Amino acid sequence: MITVLFSAREDIWPNYETRLPEALAEEGLAARVVREADPAEVDWIVYAPNGGLTDFSPFTKLKGVQSLWAGVEQIVGNPTLKVPLARMVDPGMTEGMVEWVTGHVLRHHLGMDADIKRTDGQWVRHVAPLARERTVAMLGLGALGTACARALAGLNFDVRGWSRSEKRIDGITCAHGDEGLAEVLREAEIAVLLLPDTPATTNLLDAVRLALMPNGAVIINPGRGPLIDDDALLEALDEGRIGHATLDVFREEPLPAGHPFWHHPRVTVTPHIASETRPVTAVRSAAANIARAERGEGLLHTVDFGLGY
Amino acid sequence: MITVLFSAREDIWPNYETRLPEALAEEGLAARVVREADPAEVDWIVYAPNGGLTDFSPFTKLKGVQSLWAGVEQIVGNPTLKVPLARMVDPGMTEGMVEWVTGHVLRHHLGMDADIKRTDGQWVRHVAPLARERTVAMLGLGALGTACARALAGLNFDVRGWSRSEKRIDGITCAHGDEGLAEVLREAEIAVLLLPDTPATTNLLDAVRLALMPNGAVIINPGRGPLIDDDALLEALDEGRIGHATLDVFREEPLPAGHPFWHHPRVTVTPHIASETRPVTAVRSAAANIARAERGEGLLHTVDFGLGY
Ligand SMILES: NC(=O)c1ccc[n+]([C@@H]2O[C@H](COP(=O)([O-])OP(=O)(O)OC[C@H]3O[C@@H](n4cnc5c(N)ncnc54)[C@H](OP(=O)(O)O)[C@@H]3O)[C@@H](O)[C@H]2O)c1
Ligand SMILES: NC(=O)c1ccc[n+]([C@@H]2O[C@H](COP(=O)([O-])OP(=O)(O)OC[C@H]3O[C@@H](n4cnc5c(N)ncnc54)[C@H](OP(=O)(O)O)[C@@H]3O)[C@@H](O)[C@H]2O)c1
Repeated sequence: MITVLFSAREDIWPNYETRLPEALAEEGLAARVVREADPAEVDWIVYAPNGGLTDFSPFTKLKGVQSLWAGVEQIVGNPTLKVPLARMVDPGMTEGMVEWVTGHVLRHHLGMDADIKRTDGQWVRHVAPLARERTVAMLGLGALGTACARALAGLNFDVRGWSRSEKRIDGITCAHGDEGLAEVLREAEIAVLLLPDTPATTNLLDAVRLALMPNGAVIINPGRGPLIDDDALLEALDEGRIGHATLDVFREEPLPAGHPFWHHPRVTVTPHIASETRPVTAVRSAAANIARAERGEGLLHTVDFGLGY
Repeated sequence: MITVLFSAREDIWPNYETRLPEALAEEGLAARVVREADPAEVDWIVYAPNGGLTDFSPFTKLKGVQSLWAGVEQIVGNPTLKVPLARMVDPGMTEGMVEWVTGHVLRHHLGMDADIKRTDGQWVRHVAPLARERTVAMLGLGALGTACARALAGLNFDVRGWSRSEKRIDGITCAHGDEGLAEVLREAEIAVLLLPDTPATTNLLDAVRLALMPNGAVIINPGRGPLIDDDALLEALDEGRIGHATLDVFREEPLPAGHPFWHHPRVTVTPHIASETRPVTAVRSAAANIARAERGEGLLHTVDFGLGY
């Protein structure tokens, strides 16, 4: 019998209370899932930072931590964490992200806002080019970025992907490294950010890189706030060099009232809703991953503490 | 040598002047494409109603008319037209329609307007259900409706299609006939209209059928204006039974200034831009179709004058 500690914000517990033990049982694991336990008895922690747990040192027989979130920037630097950490890769979360990204890319591609916000009652035709005539950059080709890139390529967008390591993905032109990023940005009419927040990605989109993009380009950021230098972005937006930014994530969340993003005519703020972990599918991912490790097959989606993701 | 008369609004001629003869030559046809000719010498007419041609009787050796438009309601009832009429089926137009429909379905699915139109600077999270939890009706499963239904099903939407004749399409639950329509509407959180304007489809969405839809359902009409009973729609919108209508087509176009649709808070007017015939691909469709007929293989996409589409 293994002990799995569920450590996340109290209000999501009802979504996991029955589902997680069931999913572990389906994986053939004899497990009890608890919200409190003697730390010395805990084998696994299913974890979100908003549960408040920050000191992992009392968990003396801990085998690993399964994050409930895809983004692990709040735990990866924790010096008390000495066991493997797995990111959440949840088909439900991936689907939600594909829907959000596809929707917001199409919104900008089609120029929908002209009609959604129109108040003058004027019949002004504006037909968009076809998606195949539109270049979209996908920065980050992980679980989420790859799925989004594929969906956009399926709609015929000319998708240019960028990642740290070299990649080959059917239907996507892939680049990597610094020079690769410059190449991708130079062509990107729309750029989607699905990178993790790490030391290497902080302020990735700074004044210099924003200046590489075509005039009027659109930024869509469902990744993490620190990926963008906010001041540089605001300046580029003020000058119209960046045509619009749709931002789901911010350095401070909730985005403080009075932040210039809230009322900038070229900014859409969405309140960190691009995608959520979906309990129905997430418990299966978590359970399958813990079961793999228990069978000695090794945990999937483990975080590289050096790289920070 | 055959003679093809190009009869459409003057300003689109430059898009066809070189491309159409080239496409016909690629099909192995010796053809001249002209904008004026002795009617007695014309073999084919490539046609849009906005060219002003309404009397086909002088064209004594005419073999057929290839419409530049998918919608043929302005020509199908013309008593002087005695030869086959082919609708435009253009891969470029289909792609454009898929992009427009997918974008507007996702806009409503995700509840984007709440963020796009937000002016109060409030962080109000609203996470959409997954597309697989959302039922979308596609009324019309022709060249355009089928492509749109497939794209939406590819994003995991639960797509229910409806057409006149019985159909089987992988991944789409298909219905037909009056009872089929009622079944489809009862489940439709979002309904997309891609039907032609014919006597049988006039006022198809009337007060009775609108009342079948779930409370707050969304209507997206890139088909034709007369498909909807405008007064019944306005009443349902006023009462909030229909949550939103995104309308691209209208009984009168341009939609007259002062029409209630322009300023209704639950209506988005788009100025007949959902999709256009794209010359690059349309000339190939037209040329291939004329070539088929010239080889005796029969014209494709012919209109049934009795049905009106
Ligand atoms: N807004 C929301 O609602 C929401 C929801 C979920 C997740 N997210 C965010 O989305 C991010 C991505 O999630 P994921 O599951 O796709 O992560 P993932 O599978 O770890 O993928 C991360 C991608 O970023 C690339 N990358 C990392 N550091 C890089 C660098 N320095 N330069 C270039 N590329 C770099 C990786 O490259 P390699 O492939 O070479 O490793 C990989 O392609 C998460 O970290 C989280 O911040 C947001
Ligand atoms: N807004 C724009 O920019 C734009 C651009 C292009 C086209 N359009 C509109 O889109 C329409 C559809 O184009 P399309 O190329 O897909 O046409 P299509 O291939 O002729 O398909 C028409 C579809 O409607 C169905 N239908 C016709 N009458 C019906 C009835 N009485 N009851 C039930 N179903 C009926 C047909 O059923 P069967 O399959 O059983 O025949 C077929 O599935 C055009 O007619 C045009 O009005 C708009």
